[in-house]
Amino acid sequence: MKVTILGCYAATPRTISNPTSQVLEMSNRLFLIDCGEGTQVQLRKKKIKFSKINHIFISHLHGDHCFGLIGVITTFAMLGRETDLHIYGPKGIKEFILTPLRLSGSFTSYNLYFHELSSSESEIVFEDEKVLVRTIPLKHRVYTNGYLFQEKPKERKLNKEKAEQYNIDKCYYQNIKSGKDIQLDNDTIIPNTELTFEPEPSKSYAFCSDTIYNEDVIPIIKDVEVLYHESTFLEHDLQYTERTMHCTAKQAATIAKKANAKNLIIGHYSTRYGSIEPFKTEAEEIFPNVYLAEDGIEFEF
Amino acid sequence: MKVTILGCYAATPRTISNPTSQVLEMSNRLFLIDCGEGTQVQLRKKKIKFSKINHIFISHLHGDHCFGLIGVITTFAMLGRETDLHIYGPKGIKEFILTPLRLSGSFTSYNLYFHELSSSESEIVFEDEKVLVRTIPLKHRVYTNGYLFQEKPKERKLNKEKAEQYNIDKCYYQNIKSGKDIQLDNDTIIPNTELTFEPEPSKSYAFCSDTIYNEDVIPIIKDVEVLYHESTFLEHDLQYTERTMHCTAKQAATIAKKANAKNLIIGHYSTRYGSIEPFKTEAEEIFPNVYLAEDGIEFEF
Repeated sequence: MKVTILGCYAATPRTISNPTSQVLEMSNRLFLIDCGEGTQVQLRKKKIKFSKINHIFISHLHGDHCFGLIGVITTFAMLGRETDLHIYGPKGIKEFILTPLRLSGSFTSYNLYFHELSSSESEIVFEDEKVLVRTIPLKHRVYTNGYLFQEKPKERKLNKEKAEQYNIDKCYYQNIKSGKDIQLDNDTIIPNTELTFEPEPSKSYAFCSDTIYNEDVIPIIKDVEVLYHESTFLEHDLQYTERTMHCTAKQAATIAKKANAKNLIIGHYSTRYGSIEPFKTEAEEIFPNVYLAEDGIEFEF
Repeated sequence: MKVTILGCYAATPRTISNPTSQVLEMSNRLFLIDCGEGTQVQLRKKKIKFSKINHIFISHLHGDHCFGLIGVITTFAMLGRETDLHIYGPKGIKEFILTPLRLSGSFTSYNLYFHELSSSESEIVFEDEKVLVRTIPLKHRVYTNGYLFQEKPKERKLNKEKAEQYNIDKCYYQNIKSGKDIQLDNDTIIPNTELTFEPEPSKSYAFCSDTIYNEDVIPIIKDVEVLYHESTFLEHDLQYTERTMHCTAKQAATIAKKANAKNLIIGHYSTRYGSIEPFKTEAEEIFPNVYLAEDGIEFEF
């Protein structure tokens, strides 16, 4: 599982920082999460193949999370893309994209599918044979969802030596890997645990941005391996969190701790701060495994 | 008069180039012309004060000329701007901006005025005491205008020595500078030309992008000091100009020559070319004073 941070600052793009966008690689799929202005250039900088992105998840329609989406969509078209592209985001995102497309006399060379969200409950929005994505309803100034990406349970690993000892025909191997016990010709039943090793653990990634401190997300992201949680402010600016509906680094860390997350990446820093190091220091007072998002950085878990 | 090129490439933003946007400084006014994605960052890079931009002229609604506009408008608001902002562009530009503003629950802290254009004739769209701006109807795949920026005729310069010789009271000096003759107490009339020097010549700048080769613009831009004309293709790709409705460098130079322009800046290069030098070489076969636009470059005339 790899997370590439394309941008992780709040508000406006600057010469030294980009608004929110990141790419999650999970089970050989690339998911683009949020798409602030400049995202297509950041994708190019990181040499991420446009053609491998088939699903884009937008948290909310504030500019620093979506003003780059129309550019991504039209550039994909200009490059002759033919593969379907799926956009997940708040109700209104279809109009948000189709209006400039229509007004600019543009069209896409591929099918563009919008999955508009309006539920206040967590719901599954994407599922294939390997990955499942569900929303994490957040509380912000506008309708907002985070997204939880989960690998489905993987196949158990065959203990080939054991299977050969029991003379089990290879045609049963797939059954064994999917967890079944085996009945031998002499009617003995060999329990699956004897024939297999534990599968690789399934990875999970939760993206929570933007949001006020909200413990309602905890049951949804419980035990997640990696939590990306916004932390717009440092503790001495706590008073801004109510009005702006953002979090401090400590609040992000508190969510990580209460959700029993294994790792926490923080980002969406307000551009008012000279250094982001204090975000780490403050978060680590609550939770140990804190990583600072930075534009262009890659995390592998 | 200063022209700052923020971006001058066609199609999509890349790590090494930006789509169309430029700033014209004329008579102490800053005019932003076109606004591709990334324009606000380019403005920051060039340290151009956001607060000095009160008028934005958009040629057409293709993304490489306007996808950065919503970001500029919302960033101005986030920075607490209070001064009016005027946007000039094709009919539809108001919906193009108000739709994402509405969907993102955003508003501006300042008055935003849209001047929507739909005429196929050249028309005056802006005028104050020093500058006049008129449209240059262009022929492209969608409704497009270039813009001609003209300084109004400047005041004649007072020949103070002569005025003192004639004992003319200072209260008449403004009349003299604005071109009036002076009647002395003895009824002699002193012609204005004897009391003044020629004024500084008025500058003019024509922005023509995007367009197919179109001689209809020539009478509008006749004798312009600086013509910025798109030149998307080199001569060996002439066959693409019809379908895409763009120009070659030679065609841009032909317009400059026939319009008796003094200087030609070319830009809007297709991203297919490795080097832009051949654009200059080809244009110079037709017209002598050719300058290559490059992202970040400034021209003073």
